Amino acid sequence: MSLVASQDLATYLATRGRLVDDALDRFLPPETTHPAIIHSAMRYSVFAGGKRLRPMLVIASAEACGAPARDVLPVACAVEVINTYSLIHDDLPAMDNSDTRRGRPTCHIAFGEAIAVLAGDALHALAFELIARAEQTFGAERTLRVSREIAACIGTEGMVGGQVLDLLGEGRTFPGGARGKEQPLPDVVREVHLRKTAALIRTSVRAGGILTGATTAKLDALTAYGERLGLAYQIMDDILDVVGEEAKLGKRTGSDAEKATYPKAFGLERSREIAAELTREAQEALRPLGSGGEILHAIAAYLLTRDA
Amino acid sequence: MSLVASQDLATYLATRGRLVDDALDRFLPPETTHPAIIHSAMRYSVFAGGKRLRPMLVIASAEACGAPARDVLPVACAVEVINTYSLIHDDLPAMDNSDTRRGRPTCHIAFGEAIAVLAGDALHALAFELIARAEQTFGAERTLRVSREIAACIGTEGMVGGQVLDLLGEGRTFPGGARGKEQPLPDVVREVHLRKTAALIRTSVRAGGILTGATTAKLDALTAYGERLGLAYQIMDDILDVVGEEAKLGKRTGSDAEKATYPKAFGLERSREIAAELTREAQEALRPLGSGGEILHAIAAYLLTRDA
Repeated sequence: MSLVASQDLATYLATRGRLVDDALDRFLPPETTHPAIIHSAMRYSVFAGGKRLRPMLVIASAEACGAPARDVLPVACAVEVINTYSLIHDDLPAMDNSDTRRGRPTCHIAFGEAIAVLAGDALHALAFELIARAEQTFGAERTLRVSREIAACIGTEGMVGGQVLDLLGEGRTFPGGARGKEQPLPDVVREVHLRKTAALIRTSVRAGGILTGATTAKLDALTAYGERLGLAYQIMDDILDVVGEEAKLGKRTGSDAEKATYPKAFGLERSREIAAELTREAQEALRPLGSGGEILHAIAAYLLTRDA
Repeated sequence: MSLVASQDLATYLATRGRLVDDALDRFLPPETTHPAIIHSAMRYSVFAGGKRLRPMLVIASAEACGAPARDVLPVACAVEVINTYSLIHDDLPAMDNSDTRRGRPTCHIAFGEAIAVLAGDALHALAFELIARAEQTFGAERTLRVSREIAACIGTEGMVGGQVLDLLGEGRTFPGGARGKEQPLPDVVREVHLRKTAALIRTSVRAGGILTGATTAKLDALTAYGERLGLAYQIMDDILDVVGEEAKLGKRTGSDAEKATYPKAFGLERSREIAAELTREAQEALRPLGSGGEILHAIAAYLLTRDA
């Protein structure tokens, strides 16, 4: 049981979510800035109705370590902007070939493929500009450490590597000679999820701790929490994709039919159990944070029971 | 006339080029690292026989300010890795749709489009990991400043914005409603080149100065040099594309037929004159660097007379 009532968590998520949205609006160039089409495309995808999970985790972990939400907004927005860039590129015809996301046409459908590639690239670069802004409050050393960790977790060891493994897991064959489906499915899916989703989520949680100068014990706690939360989150995503209603998710359910997913590797019931176990482990990992970790604890509970 | 004999410059470029190539080999994950296909694709494009102009400029400007080449290798490699990422994405079917570059199949031809998008993304992220390594030698503040400047110059104000304007300059129409060819050609081409090419070249030159703690006067000199050199370089590229022999450039000459280029806007002879004027201005801007600027001076002369 979480110590934070669900009504209090809803208020927390709503107020912090507004902070993030306002900051994103300030940090992204206006649509009218020349050349307008690229800024329109960037804003179209950033303001497409995401849950803002990653920025929320940067904020919640910073607050758990005693810093106000406002101070970490540049880094919170940076991880959201990175998440958006990765979704734009994942949706491209050569990748997952998705026409809709959250009930709206994807970026390449709305603006064309060339602009979608470039909007992703521009958001990717913007993220590192935003991270650097944290220097004013937290100094250059901590800021640079966060910049380096984020860069590392979205490269081939992390997010991009996970997307590659995801494509290989579909059994695609590539001109370079690589052939997929060479590992047992449970191993593949765990590695894909750890890299593709959990790495950035773990780093988002860590970022709040690093910026605020958390002790090693607290940072280790945040790391363990973030990794388990990230994996549980993606498993729930897989489950919702199977059982969810199309309208709620805003994308075709079953669209991951070719992908390596937890329900396919472990079955639906066992997948739910694994997600629940990981959530419990994530919550237990928070112990060194004391009462400061209550919001993070509640977020984990909330993500396990969400229906979209 | 340059004070450095062309034989000495050739030696300089060869020794520094070897340093850069060795460092890139150390900094890029081995081809065997799992998942192998993405690391193969990254190395395929990074070691495709580029001139290493941008890393050379980081090194030459650092040396002009008194620091050894070895110290700036992480940042030198970062700008080369960024240049490579941008070429991979520019070559994609949805963009310039180029099948060959420097006489070899482009990344998406060799590895497929999905892997090419991801190899570009991975190199983009790797660049910011590499930049952060400069902290060990130059401290967090200067390193973070370089990181922020590089991020800014490859976003919509710089490189990505230039590529968007380049696409619009072809008169393409995009689903988002944007239509190209609304500006006079000479204005378009100058803005495209300043953003798409000169911004990163200018920042490469500045990076060497920022890391080594150059005075404002010297940094202003490097900035003026870098911007003019960057523009001259791209004009010469346009000219070589018109007159070059296919074998020398390793790509189809005239492949920029739809693009806004200097020869198309100003004619071939006037384009040569503009490039020569810019080179002279770049060289004159170096005066505050005294004899330290001789190599940068010689590089400008060399780029004006290259034939590939």
